[in-house]
Amino acid sequence: METPGQALAAEMAARIVRRIDELAAISQAPGVLTRICFSPEHRRAADLILGWMREAGLTARMDEIGNVVGRWEGETPGLPALMLGSHYDTVRDAGKWDGPLGLVTALECAALIAHPAENKDGGSRLPFALEVIGFADEEGTRFSSTLLGSRAVAGTFEEGALEAVDADGITMRDAMTAFGLDPALIHQAARVRGDILGYIELHIEQGPVLEAENLPVGVVTAISGASRFLVTLEGEAGHAGTVPMYLRRDALAGAAECIAAIETQCGAQEGVVGTVGQIAAEPGATNVIPGRARFSADIRAASDAKRQEVVCDIIHAMDEIAARRQLKARIAKTHDSGTALCAPWLRAQLGEAIAAAGYPVRELPSGAGHDGMAMIDVADIAMLFVRCRGGVSHHPSEHVAPEDVATAAQVLLHAIGHFHPSPA
Amino acid sequence: METPGQALAAEMAARIVRRIDELAAISQAPGVLTRICFSPEHRRAADLILGWMREAGLTARMDEIGNVVGRWEGETPGLPALMLGSHYDTVRDAGKWDGPLGLVTALECAALIAHPAENKDGGSRLPFALEVIGFADEEGTRFSSTLLGSRAVAGTFEEGALEAVDADGITMRDAMTAFGLDPALIHQAARVRGDILGYIELHIEQGPVLEAENLPVGVVTAISGASRFLVTLEGEAGHAGTVPMYLRRDALAGAAECIAAIETQCGAQEGVVGTVGQIAAEPGATNVIPGRARFSADIRAASDAKRQEVVCDIIHAMDEIAARRQLKARIAKTHDSGTALCAPWLRAQLGEAIAAAGYPVRELPSGAGHDGMAMIDVADIAMLFVRCRGGVSHHPSEHVAPEDVATAAQVLLHAIGHFHPSPA
Repeated sequence: METPGQALAAEMAARIVRRIDELAAISQAPGVLTRICFSPEHRRAADLILGWMREAGLTARMDEIGNVVGRWEGETPGLPALMLGSHYDTVRDAGKWDGPLGLVTALECAALIAHPAENKDGGSRLPFALEVIGFADEEGTRFSSTLLGSRAVAGTFEEGALEAVDADGITMRDAMTAFGLDPALIHQAARVRGDILGYIELHIEQGPVLEAENLPVGVVTAISGASRFLVTLEGEAGHAGTVPMYLRRDALAGAAECIAAIETQCGAQEGVVGTVGQIAAEPGATNVIPGRARFSADIRAASDAKRQEVVCDIIHAMDEIAARRQLKARIAKTHDSGTALCAPWLRAQLGEAIAAAGYPVRELPSGAGHDGMAMIDVADIAMLFVRCRGGVSHHPSEHVAPEDVATAAQVLLHAIGHFHPSPA
Repeated sequence: METPGQALAAEMAARIVRRIDELAAISQAPGVLTRICFSPEHRRAADLILGWMREAGLTARMDEIGNVVGRWEGETPGLPALMLGSHYDTVRDAGKWDGPLGLVTALECAALIAHPAENKDGGSRLPFALEVIGFADEEGTRFSSTLLGSRAVAGTFEEGALEAVDADGITMRDAMTAFGLDPALIHQAARVRGDILGYIELHIEQGPVLEAENLPVGVVTAISGASRFLVTLEGEAGHAGTVPMYLRRDALAGAAECIAAIETQCGAQEGVVGTVGQIAAEPGATNVIPGRARFSADIRAASDAKRQEVVCDIIHAMDEIAARRQLKARIAKTHDSGTALCAPWLRAQLGEAIAAAGYPVRELPSGAGHDGMAMIDVADIAMLFVRCRGGVSHHPSEHVAPEDVATAAQVLLHAIGHFHPSPA
């Protein structure tokens, strides 16, 4: 037997999926989905979303960085807002769920609240304002600089980014102008702390944990910080046939041991991941002992302390491996970002909403980056993860089951309906 | 105090080094040494060597594949010959010792025997003929097909090789013709078993063992066979931040464990070497778990049984690693050559000559290939290795100390003077 809540959720899911398909049809490239920021297609998508916001009864506007913002006032005009949303740009050859699912679901919830006749779960005016936001550029596909939209809202947008150029040599400044925005006004997009009661983003997991545990949704504990390194090991090249094993200084054999150490150290700790995604050996001939090996390392954890501890252990292990093998090691840090912790009070409210939908509350870190990393500078943040097939994202095969869309919508609607601001 | 033998050896060494420098000046490329087979420079080198042979009193000829052959008859004309030599082609940007050292030293010894007035160590006519041979193409640089000269002598030259093309699209057939040879006559270069009492090659070690043990020369036990593989592991690509360690099927982490297994298995056995010289991970991005990894493996040992045993153990280990990690493994054999064992009776005579020079007899396998691998089909073979600096070869910095040239020449001269054919 379907409950009334489930029936409503299924209706919501059908509308959400339809709109995600509509957005997915707006692409710069035929046959695939590519919608990078400040492109004409990006503009068309923004206009479509602004139309949906107005249709829902919200006041809608595009802000100074290109974010689309819809607002539903609370019991009195001008109250601080609970902000919900995600981003509407994509990577190249993208899946259709990453970004739009969170934005469209938030909009669907707001529409139900703004039209109480269709809303069995709450009144039409809440004791706080509701804002739905679609961030203009989360992926950073065009200008290699992520979180442009949310940084502007958080007041941390860096002017220098305007001079970044895309693959065609066009600056962000010129692209924004062509899009119809005035780069000189970006600072006006910034919000002040206190205006936003909290930022909640619903997003596909982009990982396999929920699927492996047969759960439709989960609560994010933190957006993991990341440390990245480029490691170079130098040994001595030599003839593959003539140098006995005990006289070798094989840089690739050393790299292999480092890769194993990274895997072991990260695997030994809950919530830590480590990846070697790139590797090269020189001179790179079948019959020559590698004199040099280079590899990347990407270490993430749900707390900065844990990440720093693991990074420290890994560097120590690599130094020991290099010394024992008489290799020269150069370990260069190429990236370091801190962890964005989700607010416990917001996590608790999302957990209550999941429990109300009849599911166990699974908490998990987000290894991928999200707009919350920027929004945390202006508001407490939280995220609701939705199961995606095979954990696949950033690929056309990215998929979310309609039942999971329904559950996610039901949970988000419940969380909004029962939202109470932080006691602090 | 220098003994008369040592004084003679020093004189020999000076002449040998001078001639090696003369040969090194004949190059296709300015500033570096490159002399690939059937080039005009190859021809000039052949003519220079043939001149040296005649100057030494030998009858000299170029055979039908382009080998240069000098002969000094024994007590009666037409006796079976002890054959000495090496090759006179080079790799690109070569060192000057690899090949010429063995050829020029053999020629120097033959010259001393043919001119007994200068020879304090033996008579002018031996109870066997002496042949000095310079093989035309050992490296296979031009036509990717090694040991052309020695295969022709051994009667194992394959006609199909004539259709191989070089980087400019010239067939070996045309190159030979331009060089002044008739490809239809190559079979006439073949010798019959019994004509050659043994083939002894002096060559730089191309490895670091003699240097590490502070010895000028060593006796080769066998030219190692080699097995080569291309290994492909397929797992599942994924987001470096979102897939927990326990749910990963990381192809590169699997490859790293395979590389460690190859190193461990080969390091555990005397005379076995294993090298992973090439590696690639796909998709090859810092923040993506590798879904595929490919690497080469080159395994060599001084006996076929040992090599096959180690290869078997390594394949077993890689299969186990792949199965445990849920990776699909494809292990493709790309090369397999058997071991060429040096004849114990010839090894013993080289050992006696080394002992006579006052050095301990160090036996070691040759991990690199040599003309003996072809010559073994028509005669027993042996090799005398000479220490080279840092074990470096196939590089302009390849170097042999003049004192080691002297010792090697002294040992080879002694071995020739005391040579007695196999009792069998």
